Amino acid sequence: MIRISERGKEITLSPIRKLAPLAEAAQRKGVHVHFLNIGQPDIPTPEIALNAVKNADLKVLEYSHSAGNLSFRTKLVEYYSKFSIGLSTEDIIITSGGSEAILIGFLVCLNPGDEVLVPEPFYANYISFAKAASASIKTIPTKIEDNFALPPISTFENYISDKTKAIMLCNPGNPTGKIYSRDELEQLKNLVKKHDMFLFADEVYREFCYDQAIPFSVMQLEGVEDNVILIDSISKRYSMCGARIGTLISRNKSVIETALKFAQARLSPPTYGQIAGEAALDVKQEYFDSVKNEYIKRRDILCEALSKMKGVVFSKPSGAFYIMAKLPVDSADKFCKWLLTDFRHNGETVMLAPGNGFYSTPGMGEQEVRMAYVLNQTALSKAMVCLEIALEQYPGKTL
Amino acid sequence: MIRISERGKEITLSPIRKLAPLAEAAQRKGVHVHFLNIGQPDIPTPEIALNAVKNADLKVLEYSHSAGNLSFRTKLVEYYSKFSIGLSTEDIIITSGGSEAILIGFLVCLNPGDEVLVPEPFYANYISFAKAASASIKTIPTKIEDNFALPPISTFENYISDKTKAIMLCNPGNPTGKIYSRDELEQLKNLVKKHDMFLFADEVYREFCYDQAIPFSVMQLEGVEDNVILIDSISKRYSMCGARIGTLISRNKSVIETALKFAQARLSPPTYGQIAGEAALDVKQEYFDSVKNEYIKRRDILCEALSKMKGVVFSKPSGAFYIMAKLPVDSADKFCKWLLTDFRHNGETVMLAPGNGFYSTPGMGEQEVRMAYVLNQTALSKAMVCLEIALEQYPGKTL
Repeated sequence: MIRISERGKEITLSPIRKLAPLAEAAQRKGVHVHFLNIGQPDIPTPEIALNAVKNADLKVLEYSHSAGNLSFRTKLVEYYSKFSIGLSTEDIIITSGGSEAILIGFLVCLNPGDEVLVPEPFYANYISFAKAASASIKTIPTKIEDNFALPPISTFENYISDKTKAIMLCNPGNPTGKIYSRDELEQLKNLVKKHDMFLFADEVYREFCYDQAIPFSVMQLEGVEDNVILIDSISKRYSMCGARIGTLISRNKSVIETALKFAQARLSPPTYGQIAGEAALDVKQEYFDSVKNEYIKRRDILCEALSKMKGVVFSKPSGAFYIMAKLPVDSADKFCKWLLTDFRHNGETVMLAPGNGFYSTPGMGEQEVRMAYVLNQTALSKAMVCLEIALEQYPGKTL
Repeated sequence: MIRISERGKEITLSPIRKLAPLAEAAQRKGVHVHFLNIGQPDIPTPEIALNAVKNADLKVLEYSHSAGNLSFRTKLVEYYSKFSIGLSTEDIIITSGGSEAILIGFLVCLNPGDEVLVPEPFYANYISFAKAASASIKTIPTKIEDNFALPPISTFENYISDKTKAIMLCNPGNPTGKIYSRDELEQLKNLVKKHDMFLFADEVYREFCYDQAIPFSVMQLEGVEDNVILIDSISKRYSMCGARIGTLISRNKSVIETALKFAQARLSPPTYGQIAGEAALDVKQEYFDSVKNEYIKRRDILCEALSKMKGVVFSKPSGAFYIMAKLPVDSADKFCKWLLTDFRHNGETVMLAPGNGFYSTPGMGEQEVRMAYVLNQTALSKAMVCLEIALEQYPGKTL
């Protein structure tokens, strides 16, 4: 009998995909499903990016440099300088999405058996990338009732062992919408310095900070240049998830040199995606302003609707386009399934991501759901009507 | 002191990239370098593929299905049926190049410490993907003097231990140009069946088989459906290396199901590349015929030139677009460097890939070089003139 690997047996399905077959079944029955489960924005991709690809005059669709086109990296240096992040082109490796940046980062920094500390709830795919590197994710619980604030550093210390090689953050946070303060990051700085750990930060939602929040990047921390690795992506920033363009950024020469060897093994990042990504960097500030305004309106629709629903607890997001909510139900997992299999309101229902998929600690997040506000305002309002009525009708309601 | 991982320290630079700085230095001095070191074809990408991207009417550049667009996979089923390979769309996962297919395949099939048996010389990047999976490549030597024929199965048996989890082939071969016979593959079939091993075959050069050679795929082997994993790519097939589109194919449900979980973690393969790749499948047989004729002419230019050079041994390739040659020099590594740093003929020189980078056994391939015949016939002829004169002038010549 031929067998797959142990890591293959252990790897789990992404929580946002688990219920997909039920949603497809509902759609086949003619039900209109409002998809709030996945962070695929509906925002139009900037035309300047789409046109750059249309107008590209290629004869041979060649490999690019393994670190990505130099012209693209040069413009990225300029982009980051607007956020007071000083870089050189040699600090940047273009990857196939932020996903590949995380995977290569883990391969470069983690030995088999090493652990990465991540505040939970967290982006569940980090688990798969850690597993690919024969390492693992260890979580530090944060609570929806505390607006997902980081625990004090003394608590972090309790979770650190010989195996702890890195701390990883998503800032602004998926799934929480939480933005970490400069003060929180400065404390983590001291921690990673003290313990010789890497500090990974996934900052792909940088452009989506609301209510005058100013994003502070780990790259702005002084004195931990060798510890910090920035994961970035153009997927959400310019609504071009399909370009598959991300970046791995570090000022640690040995990290970049080694990451480049892994990058050379896989030859190069996608050429068309790079053309689109480079052109997108010319997008005007007005684009971000208008997209941000749109997300704020959507967030407010959700928050207003949720605040009227009895027994619902949520943390108002300051960034990204997700909201976690705790529902008065026996099990969010069962509730999310029931929404797809049983519930209908005017031929509609809503698809949510069960919250426990974003926690590793058993029992946490069992009543929580993640919603991505990536639909237009009308659809979101309808989705909230569905949710409100569903909470009243659900047989397993706890109120 | 913060440290990178052990695998990071061990990973080596691809042999085709090692001398790149020397080539760049030569170019800066105005030397015309004929690049035979890298398999980047100069063949124009089919216009039908480039136009499909130009004409794509996208508003939002979205994620695709994690296994790749269904329409693309449906057309791939049809493509493979022409080679008597019967598949369903569920057997196919579209990846970011053949590279990602190998990586995911290794992650799914190999445990840390496992070994993959590969006949050497071999495509050196397999080492990096194995290392990424905390596994390793173990090589079985084959010799240029024997036209790189596989050793008898009894020899394979000597290399198999408890750790051996898979055999991997590149067929037609990079760097050898060797095409394995049906008989050779049937013998390997019995071997992998006996030892419950996976059989990986990298068949990306399928369309480049010369002299009436008929490619026989591992997917045509009967009775080892659960063992066989096909790695494929459109990079060379349609001269679109920059599309970053490959495929992981298997009839083993558990392999595909697990591979899809890794594929879901990284979200999706590039959207533009898939559009180009799907359109390329409509390329007419005449395209391949004409490309094949061109490669045959190029191969013949190389073989004719090499056969006139005193002391040069080579194996005439039956497929792909590489040729290995053993040169009368003290060290091919030194010779390749010297070509870039010291040798000039009419302001020209030639860049070759040192052969030892394609062997793991210490001492093997020290006098060999790999040449990729990816330049036009005129350039190739000039490159051969350079090589012939260089072999006469090289201070470390052994003849």
